[in-house]
Amino acid sequence: MRVTVFAGGYGGARFLAGMRDVPDTEVTAVVNTADDLVLHGLTVCPDLDTVMYTLGGGLDTDRGWGRADEGFRAGEELRAYGMPQPWFGLGDRDLATHLVRTQMLAAGYRLTDVTAALCRRWEPGVTVLPMSDDRVETHVVVADGDGRRAMHFQEWWVRHGARLPAEEFVQVGGAAARPTDEVAAAIAAADLIAVAPSNPVVSIGPILGVPGLREAVAAAAAPVVGVSPIIAGRAVRGMAEQCLAAVGVPASAAGVARHYGARSDGGLLDAWLVAPEDAAAVADLADLDLAVRAVPLLMSDPASATALARAVLAAP
Amino acid sequence: MRVTVFAGGYGGARFLAGMRDVPDTEVTAVVNTADDLVLHGLTVCPDLDTVMYTLGGGLDTDRGWGRADEGFRAGEELRAYGMPQPWFGLGDRDLATHLVRTQMLAAGYRLTDVTAALCRRWEPGVTVLPMSDDRVETHVVVADGDGRRAMHFQEWWVRHGARLPAEEFVQVGGAAARPTDEVAAAIAAADLIAVAPSNPVVSIGPILGVPGLREAVAAAAAPVVGVSPIIAGRAVRGMAEQCLAAVGVPASAAGVARHYGARSDGGLLDAWLVAPEDAAAVADLADLDLAVRAVPLLMSDPASATALARAVLAAP
Repeated sequence: MRVTVFAGGYGGARFLAGMRDVPDTEVTAVVNTADDLVLHGLTVCPDLDTVMYTLGGGLDTDRGWGRADEGFRAGEELRAYGMPQPWFGLGDRDLATHLVRTQMLAAGYRLTDVTAALCRRWEPGVTVLPMSDDRVETHVVVADGDGRRAMHFQEWWVRHGARLPAEEFVQVGGAAARPTDEVAAAIAAADLIAVAPSNPVVSIGPILGVPGLREAVAAAAAPVVGVSPIIAGRAVRGMAEQCLAAVGVPASAAGVARHYGARSDGGLLDAWLVAPEDAAAVADLADLDLAVRAVPLLMSDPASATALARAVLAAP
Repeated sequence: MRVTVFAGGYGGARFLAGMRDVPDTEVTAVVNTADDLVLHGLTVCPDLDTVMYTLGGGLDTDRGWGRADEGFRAGEELRAYGMPQPWFGLGDRDLATHLVRTQMLAAGYRLTDVTAALCRRWEPGVTVLPMSDDRVETHVVVADGDGRRAMHFQEWWVRHGARLPAEEFVQVGGAAARPTDEVAAAIAAADLIAVAPSNPVVSIGPILGVPGLREAVAAAAAPVVGVSPIIAGRAVRGMAEQCLAAVGVPASAAGVARHYGARSDGGLLDAWLVAPEDAAAVADLADLDLAVRAVPLLMSDPASATALARAVLAAP
């Protein structure tokens, strides 16, 4: 069974691992790249790397980002030299990934090809595709005592811990981006399309924002099944609440479902999985043409991630 | 007293430290850059870095290259990705220096300015100048069972341990290089010019090979004092013997003096320091118009390096 998954970083990666481990699935991940940044001249792709490291067994699972057995000597030195963006946690092992990627991009390879090359080392067991080969960056418009201004998503997220009040998220470059042939083919050929429990605003949002991608999903034969990233009003990990608040979406399983919308009504979803704690959403969403199922969503170990993946496959 | 020193890496750096520590000296180092290489897209300047780290207190003094408290995680990963030049010892802290340098060069700064910027962090106590802002690379022509071929000096030196028979050393880009205004000024304004006990062929040779530089030294008012890098027929460190053999120069204190030549005879030197073990060179070189002194050359600690520097200042 061919399963195409839209995914961000940590939650997306764990969900992908669960789906990969279901027998007879052939998984393609379409991964958000709007968190990408250029750091010290290197192209860093946080979500692609988190997916690749998680599925390849190289993630620091305690921290939830970066490499296991990581060191931070290069970053210490960059700070000692007074280099900008000292708040970004740049590991020494991680740096090697960025060096390889940056050189391949400079040599003219597409990010899709570069990602495939990096994955030959990591053998993630799924096909990992960037959402686009074009540069798209989420910038956050914030307003506080220092006035209204925009900053890269990573600065808002990592440096400021998502504490600055966000007014708007803008995908710089988003309007000019194109989906790749690989992404278009993965959507068209899928037997099932899954939306991972990733941040709806800054992970799934930018993927759906690539011009033509939403239309490709609408035209696809496969059912689209989403997993709520919100359990009992809170993001399991990360800071989705702050992002949802900025775009006026209630931080609830039902709120995110309405944000995505039912497919028959011009939206994204055919089915929606919520946690047992949010079983009330089944009734709340009765007005939508949407199969809503309450199943355990917490991926606390590989077995629960696989169980969730099986629930997704059974949902349509 | 303004002292301008021509220097390579390790021996040059120790000599520079000794000269810096003599009171009332104002030292400018003109450093070989023909060992430089582009590694994983980054510009690496081994001799400049060795000088900067040594004088700034950041060198790994046991290894004699790279940074103290160094890690090698990034290099491990680059090898795991199958990247080229796995034999080059690229430290994690060191990598930060290369990242800063590469970005500044990409932004259009001259290597001279980049080096000055890096030195603001290291405070080496001497002015560190690259021999040229133009790219010059020493390549080695080797011939063995695999045929006659050329390779970057670092590949011959680090990867092959200088064991492949060298037929010739060629400075690629050397003919088109220009000395910088800073180097020209440091030569013209010097009260004394010193040639550090660095490799005559691949460290001092490329410096003197920058078009116009030899003429600038000949025209300078200052006396030129050289220190033999050979003691009792052997290089104190490094593999100068192999390099000298390739260009047909005897690996001896007298051999290197004749290679440099007496200034009054169109050569480089006014005075030449040899080790007590090589005191016979004083008589051997009597036919040259050259003040030859036998003094302790071994720089085993800061005090002996400073004593050597004082002997250089007293030599003319």
